[in-house]
Amino acid sequence: MHALVERLYPLCRSITGDGVRATLDIVGEHLELEVHEVPTGTQVLDWTVPREWNIRDAYVKDPSGTRVVDFRRSNLHVVGYSVPVSAVMTLDELRPHLHTLPEQPGLVPYRTSYYAETWGFCLSQDTLDGMGPGPYEVVIDSTLADGHLTYAEHVVRGRTDEEVLISCHVCHPSLANDNLAGIAVATALAGRLREPRHTYRFLFAPGTIGAITWLARNRERTGRVRHGLTLACAGDPGALTYKRSRRGDAPIDRVMTAVLRDRPHTVVDFAPYGYDERQFCSPGFNLPVGSLTRTPYAGYPEYHTSGDDVGFVSPEAMADTLDALWAAVQVLERDGRYQNLSPYGEPQLGRRGLYGSLGGRSDTKQAQMAMLWVLNLSDGDHGLLDIAQRSGLPFGAVAEAAGALEGAGLLKRVGEGG
Amino acid sequence: MHALVERLYPLCRSITGDGVRATLDIVGEHLELEVHEVPTGTQVLDWTVPREWNIRDAYVKDPSGTRVVDFRRSNLHVVGYSVPVSAVMTLDELRPHLHTLPEQPGLVPYRTSYYAETWGFCLSQDTLDGMGPGPYEVVIDSTLADGHLTYAEHVVRGRTDEEVLISCHVCHPSLANDNLAGIAVATALAGRLREPRHTYRFLFAPGTIGAITWLARNRERTGRVRHGLTLACAGDPGALTYKRSRRGDAPIDRVMTAVLRDRPHTVVDFAPYGYDERQFCSPGFNLPVGSLTRTPYAGYPEYHTSGDDVGFVSPEAMADTLDALWAAVQVLERDGRYQNLSPYGEPQLGRRGLYGSLGGRSDTKQAQMAMLWVLNLSDGDHGLLDIAQRSGLPFGAVAEAAGALEGAGLLKRVGEGG
Amino acid sequence: MHALVERLYPLCRSITGDGVRATLDIVGEHLELEVHEVPTGTQVLDWTVPREWNIRDAYVKDPSGTRVVDFRRSNLHVVGYSVPVSAVMTLDELRPHLHTLPEQPGLVPYRTSYYAETWGFCLSQDTLDGMGPGPYEVVIDSTLADGHLTYAEHVVRGRTDEEVLISCHVCHPSLANDNLAGIAVATALAGRLREPRHTYRFLFAPGTIGAITWLARNRERTGRVRHGLTLACAGDPGALTYKRSRRGDAPIDRVMTAVLRDRPHTVVDFAPYGYDERQFCSPGFNLPVGSLTRTPYAGYPEYHTSGDDVGFVSPEAMADTLDALWAAVQVLERDGRYQNLSPYGEPQLGRRGLYGSLGGRSDTKQAQMAMLWVLNLSDGDHGLLDIAQRSGLPFGAVAEAAGALEGAGLLKRVGEGG
Repeated sequence: MHALVERLYPLCRSITGDGVRATLDIVGEHLELEVHEVPTGTQVLDWTVPREWNIRDAYVKDPSGTRVVDFRRSNLHVVGYSVPVSAVMTLDELRPHLHTLPEQPGLVPYRTSYYAETWGFCLSQDTLDGMGPGPYEVVIDSTLADGHLTYAEHVVRGRTDEEVLISCHVCHPSLANDNLAGIAVATALAGRLREPRHTYRFLFAPGTIGAITWLARNRERTGRVRHGLTLACAGDPGALTYKRSRRGDAPIDRVMTAVLRDRPHTVVDFAPYGYDERQFCSPGFNLPVGSLTRTPYAGYPEYHTSGDDVGFVSPEAMADTLDALWAAVQVLERDGRYQNLSPYGEPQLGRRGLYGSLGGRSDTKQAQMAMLWVLNLSDGDHGLLDIAQRSGLPFGAVAEAAGALEGAGLLKRVGEGG
Repeated sequence: MHALVERLYPLCRSITGDGVRATLDIVGEHLELEVHEVPTGTQVLDWTVPREWNIRDAYVKDPSGTRVVDFRRSNLHVVGYSVPVSAVMTLDELRPHLHTLPEQPGLVPYRTSYYAETWGFCLSQDTLDGMGPGPYEVVIDSTLADGHLTYAEHVVRGRTDEEVLISCHVCHPSLANDNLAGIAVATALAGRLREPRHTYRFLFAPGTIGAITWLARNRERTGRVRHGLTLACAGDPGALTYKRSRRGDAPIDRVMTAVLRDRPHTVVDFAPYGYDERQFCSPGFNLPVGSLTRTPYAGYPEYHTSGDDVGFVSPEAMADTLDALWAAVQVLERDGRYQNLSPYGEPQLGRRGLYGSLGGRSDTKQAQMAMLWVLNLSDGDHGLLDIAQRSGLPFGAVAEAAGALEGAGLLKRVGEGG
Repeated sequence: MHALVERLYPLCRSITGDGVRATLDIVGEHLELEVHEVPTGTQVLDWTVPREWNIRDAYVKDPSGTRVVDFRRSNLHVVGYSVPVSAVMTLDELRPHLHTLPEQPGLVPYRTSYYAETWGFCLSQDTLDGMGPGPYEVVIDSTLADGHLTYAEHVVRGRTDEEVLISCHVCHPSLANDNLAGIAVATALAGRLREPRHTYRFLFAPGTIGAITWLARNRERTGRVRHGLTLACAGDPGALTYKRSRRGDAPIDRVMTAVLRDRPHTVVDFAPYGYDERQFCSPGFNLPVGSLTRTPYAGYPEYHTSGDDVGFVSPEAMADTLDALWAAVQVLERDGRYQNLSPYGEPQLGRRGLYGSLGGRSDTKQAQMAMLWVLNLSDGDHGLLDIAQRSGLPFGAVAEAAGALEGAGLLKRVGEGG
């Protein structure tokens, strides 16, 4: 996963343009992607697909001919969606177009201006402090023209049409945690799935406008989304954070809470700010989509700065995120509501070889406890995750007990968990 | 407000009589009052309006001719509703009619006997300890005769018939916190209201029998009471206390809890003891009426003693009570449920000038967060107070966001808050 | 109660056989019992009544003729339901049939093997460590043959058919806390009941198979069980423990929680392990049956060992268990929902002699507070236990207030509590 992050890092992504296409090409080497190109001007919900932005070069050259700000060194140096510029300006004239982080003087900020026509450069405060009065040659060799918005889907067909939506944004330039780590973990998760019960849909799309475009073009499909996660900031050193869906009690909320219980983690309530859960959880859709991150949105000093580089994300952290996701997939795949077919009194497990025969001992095993719990709560109202939570037993033990009891004809699956 | 307390303090109020009339006359200098006179013998719910009590003088004169207990010095010295007496008695004979507070020997207690025909004097234990064997001249120059029970209403008409009931009792003699401060704060609040949405009804009535009389004569009107508060003990040095309505989850309960959140305060559950919330919250009416006090009923040593004098209440405390009430009025007036008219995805706020156009910054302002929260939760089920509480944003910011969004055609009011 | 425990202690009980019959004979000296004999082979729910087991003698005799393990010294020495044996074996051959507690080397464990045909001896690790290589004479003089399963009921008829089920198991041999103390406390409780409102059914039956047999033969009657408790481990030095019914919010759960509130105690959620609440709370029946113990199932080191002897249970502990049960019976008998017949405003209690007539005092008595609470919450929705809990008043005070108000014509009983 870390190699994928390193490879994607130099590309200049934005909400449209060739950077997104190049990114999807690389992801497409790992996963079969369906790539969608949506023309500029297309109405998508309350929004319109904007003009496509591409950039070749940009710099601020001082009187000695030195590029003091240089797009080639880092694509963060240009405000995203900057219109073309070619001018000579004094520092005073240039100043309103320069963005720095005075409190983090060594870092370059990340700025965009998608929907207001402007241009600008981002640089460290240290660089700015060293700049003389000029004049400066100021060039942004960009184009802002009719074109397309690009996004991609990877679908792992399941035995049912019920979908699990995993979404990550692909519109940030050289920022590793936000969101190349998310792209890498989603790619790895997709690669692991084999003949699942649910259909898993991975969405690689630009933030906000990409999610809105997907929603606009898939309105009828949203009814199939049973569970969903936006995935971002998946590789920083912090603990995992799950942000609940707007519903707050959706199955995915309970699953993620259960999966994270035994790891360092935080669970926070939904708020209409953050990543594309904002769109999926808008009140008209109100999809059961939560958000999984490590340190959440805007919660670390490197957030949206040049400090969010490939060294900021670690293979270990991404593996931990993937592991938690995999555990969640296990629960989503195996959870279900069952009916005890012998609900009057306990069935005689010993006769069926399901119970140790020598009574009177207090060291009854976890497997036997799991069978008793599954039998007791399988009244059609409780799913296996419910039973795991109420009993304090691991979900896996409960799922195995259900399997054994189903095999013995004592249990019948009657519906989804949750 | 403190000047009003000082002016009302010397009057000898009881549940009937000229002291109540004189009190309402003075309040009537500040507010337009409708004064009601209800004849003795009138059946009111399970009760009957009692005879009217008036008193001119009362004393216990020692053998030297000195008034050792003197109604003219403090009207607390006579047990309320004492029948007339004119006798010469030894201390031993008088003793069963004398009430003191042995544990607060310097204070005179407050006692009444409305519904059992008797008489008595209240005095400090110190005074009693200094009294010789007598004989004493014992005089209570009172009358207990057919007359009227007096109460008054002040109504601020609103744009709707939905009423907010603010009730305070006017039956206590020289006790400043209980309840002259309540009368003063209610009077000040009434004077502040200008063309409100709700109709505000201020009730100045004797405790218990006055509230019961009002309820008996306004049975059909009680259905209009959407929110209510009994107001008492509004000027002591303690923190504010809100006692929930019997319902426990009425809008007024949520409003007061929200308003008090950022002040020192206590919130307590309903109990069928205290002030006239007992009557408003009797199970047949079960009105959404809570109780606002500072230190609650019987919770301070000066309670129902001569220690509850004009020095015990402060202008600052009364101003703080009024301020909290005013904040509650703001919420009652501005709360409401709205419908997001663009609920699929977020509407594009930038295009409508509602959003800062330079993205990528993490210091999104409170106003923008408030807009996102209002949009996200305006599904017809959540009121603005709900949204303020769930988001942790100030109610005012949320209400302003709703106004801006309504102005932009993105929101429509669909009902009351709460 | 302790004398009963001492008398029952030496009998060799199992899930069938003469030990159970002798136990019920002794209980029958205190209570009128209906004894049921259910033939071997009878189908009971998912189970079959097993063959009857009886034992006369058993021992392991060493080469010197000494009985190193001797059933006559303690019936725990033989694994319950051991088939007959008569053999000479070396220690190595005998070893697989010997059960000890290596971590409690001085104690003899309790073991059974009801449904797998085998035999064995239980002994202390200390005894085993002192045994030479043999050969040993090994004898179990038992019979395992068609016969009956025996259980008994004692019923105290109430004024209604609604039943309270008190169940205790009678299948353990010489174990005092588990469950002779339970039998003794149940017997004492039954003896105390006089013309109750509910019908009380006491069930003395072997664990698991006995409860299953009763359920199989009384399916239609289970609908009458309004409240129930399994009673076990009633005499150890630990604090009382109440385990909630599977429903978790049944009236018995609320009653027991209230009754235990002012004693050292623990309340735990239902789990499908423990005593016969497992059967009563199986999902098909889901009866409102909780479990009352002192230290719970398997929670003390003496559990299922020779350490659980008559010295382990105390008269004081059994009296405390009985006292808590008796308090619960008081609530079950006296709880109810009432309707305030004068619900508009407070009724005038003073006129009816129900209220102190001298007002203005803050030391209103508990009895008067109880009346106000009962009047306020008697809207048909709240029972007296609800009112006691919400007011913080003792249940007895609330029940007395309800009685006084009913006597004054202010209240009418409209239904069960809970």
